[in-house]
Amino acid sequence: MHQPTKVRDLAQVACAALERLRGEAPRVHCITNAVAQNFTANVLLAAGCVPSMTLSVEEIGAFVAGADALLVNLGTFDAERRAAAEIAVATANREGLPWVLDPVFVDRSPARAEFARTVIARGPKVVRFNAGEFAALAGAEATPGTLAAFARDNGVTVALSGEIDLISDGDRHAGIENGHALMTRVTAMGCAGSALLAACLAVEDDPLRAAVGALVIIGVAGEVAAEQSQGPGSFAAAILDTLFNLDAATLTARARITQ
Amino acid sequence: MHQPTKVRDLAQVACAALERLRGEAPRVHCITNAVAQNFTANVLLAAGCVPSMTLSVEEIGAFVAGADALLVNLGTFDAERRAAAEIAVATANREGLPWVLDPVFVDRSPARAEFARTVIARGPKVVRFNAGEFAALAGAEATPGTLAAFARDNGVTVALSGEIDLISDGDRHAGIENGHALMTRVTAMGCAGSALLAACLAVEDDPLRAAVGALVIIGVAGEVAAEQSQGPGSFAAAILDTLFNLDAATLTARARITQ
Amino acid sequence: MHQPTKVRDLAQVACAALERLRGEAPRVHCITNAVAQNFTANVLLAAGCVPSMTLSVEEIGAFVAGADALLVNLGTFDAERRAAAEIAVATANREGLPWVLDPVFVDRSPARAEFARTVIARGPKVVRFNAGEFAALAGAEATPGTLAAFARDNGVTVALSGEIDLISDGDRHAGIENGHALMTRVTAMGCAGSALLAACLAVEDDPLRAAVGALVIIGVAGEVAAEQSQGPGSFAAAILDTLFNLDAATLTARARITQ
Repeated sequence: MHQPTKVRDLAQVACAALERLRGEAPRVHCITNAVAQNFTANVLLAAGCVPSMTLSVEEIGAFVAGADALLVNLGTFDAERRAAAEIAVATANREGLPWVLDPVFVDRSPARAEFARTVIARGPKVVRFNAGEFAALAGAEATPGTLAAFARDNGVTVALSGEIDLISDGDRHAGIENGHALMTRVTAMGCAGSALLAACLAVEDDPLRAAVGALVIIGVAGEVAAEQSQGPGSFAAAILDTLFNLDAATLTARARITQ
Repeated sequence: MHQPTKVRDLAQVACAALERLRGEAPRVHCITNAVAQNFTANVLLAAGCVPSMTLSVEEIGAFVAGADALLVNLGTFDAERRAAAEIAVATANREGLPWVLDPVFVDRSPARAEFARTVIARGPKVVRFNAGEFAALAGAEATPGTLAAFARDNGVTVALSGEIDLISDGDRHAGIENGHALMTRVTAMGCAGSALLAACLAVEDDPLRAAVGALVIIGVAGEVAAEQSQGPGSFAAAILDTLFNLDAATLTARARITQ
Repeated sequence: MHQPTKVRDLAQVACAALERLRGEAPRVHCITNAVAQNFTANVLLAAGCVPSMTLSVEEIGAFVAGADALLVNLGTFDAERRAAAEIAVATANREGLPWVLDPVFVDRSPARAEFARTVIARGPKVVRFNAGEFAALAGAEATPGTLAAFARDNGVTVALSGEIDLISDGDRHAGIENGHALMTRVTAMGCAGSALLAACLAVEDDPLRAAVGALVIIGVAGEVAAEQSQGPGSFAAAILDTLFNLDAATLTARARITQ
């Protein structure tokens, strides 16, 4: 199906994705937690996208039908968001819209893990999690092998957050070494990264390449921003500035991708 | 009813409004979307006002009754916010409180447009929208003529956001050329502007003058902030700083109002 | 029960609390208003803690059971948050988890004041309020005497926000003179301070010392941040940076505690 991909190609993938985000301004509908909504919208705006966030069951179908990609984030998950997710996923699947699942904190709540499994069965293009969340869903510690098996078994591309982000679609694998420790000290940074990943799916058909593009873009932006910051407060503003100003030369020079 | 207004008067209107916001610290209750709540509160605080945001049907009546102005923003509109709006508008009308409607994204959801029409019939002092939202509500493209007709037909003052903001109460018209492109790259900037407009209605009886004052204040603040910013992240902080520090001399020098 | 405490000891209390927050990274579950969630999470992260914010009745029990402290903030209080608070408080009490009540705006809503009284009867370690909120709950103006009486009568430690923060457990008293006027111009600053207070209860058993520690930390951070800020926007970022970088020498040099 997808062509084999070289590392050098993958650095270009990030540049191409960023250029297309700015050129096409995809609409990205986000079901996300209340903590993350504002920062997520600002990350998407800084990258050139058009975010929408409504959760109302009467309205979300129309919003998703008019969008180019969908994020389903399970943070602060409640009855309203579950009902919204039901409609949003059905609409996305009907319209052929790509969507991302971010099963936040499934390792902290069995009810949430159970719900996440039913959502994965509905066909997200990409599932993004950290090691604890992966373990809660997969019943196994995260290794390149278990990740690839999970991707194959569920027919999804997986993106595991960590010191090195690992991406796998079951056949192909990539590791992204970009990023900065301050990214873990600003709430919603991961959620916003998943929203950017959904945005990249709107402009790049191959989920693995979309995931690589999004994680290189946000990781490089984090590194540049950290160099200009005194702590997490100035960092949160600086990463938005950096996303807004990021260019291909910086992305190419800083991308650290392994396979 | 209202006196004819000269352009030079209108620049003074913004100065007077800002001074009165700081002096009287009006309470502004905001029904607004979850994405916008934090930034809206911070804009109001930076301008000297006292925001409140509760949506609970048991409580919102008491909050609105104790407030000086009300904002009803339809972003991320759900059952809770609809019920809250019902009570809030009834309370505001009973208490003679001025209120603003911001029918966010009515062009993206027919259900929301339908609800917005019922809210307009309840008598907001000002309705604020962009061109797409106006078209969805008025069934016509936004021109000075259709705007004035909409204002007259609905007995409201309208404020249309755009490259040039257009304000009309049906008889009188003003255009505000202030503002900066970065304002479109920070989420909730428009929502916060509508909240500031509600605040100005608390200190200025004439809705057209209140709208002019609010849009000049936020537009000039945006211009000054953009000169100190590297991108949308630093801009969002800088516009709050600028609102807090803004003086009459800067407002007068920078106001660009047409009639 | 608790040892008598000298002022010099109390400055050390703040240093010890900050060090333990960073070393132990306590999990703090927050039921807080939508306006405050993002900034509260960022304050906790900047201080080294791990915030969670979910309100879902199916999940909050599991989150609280896995946390080290709980904040119950009544801002924008609705049916969902009341139900969540019910479960969260029951879980915290069963698990022996310390928790803080912040009865925001009880002076603006009789329904909220009534609910706050029932929550106080459930045994928070600390209740934090401003003068208006205290008066609405205690039926008396806030003085050192009425504060101490309220603390004794309700078996809680109280922390009254103001020009000088007053803390009392009924027997012992402290006043914190740290802080800066800009802290009143950023929304959720008080809410975030209460979350930090909950975090300090996770690392310091004595509620009075935990309250002193939290209020000195946030107050000193506010002072340092104000010196680097141009207004409330840059201040909000700077206080996060300052919390992240704060050291014992700065805390000791700047702590202004009276008894």
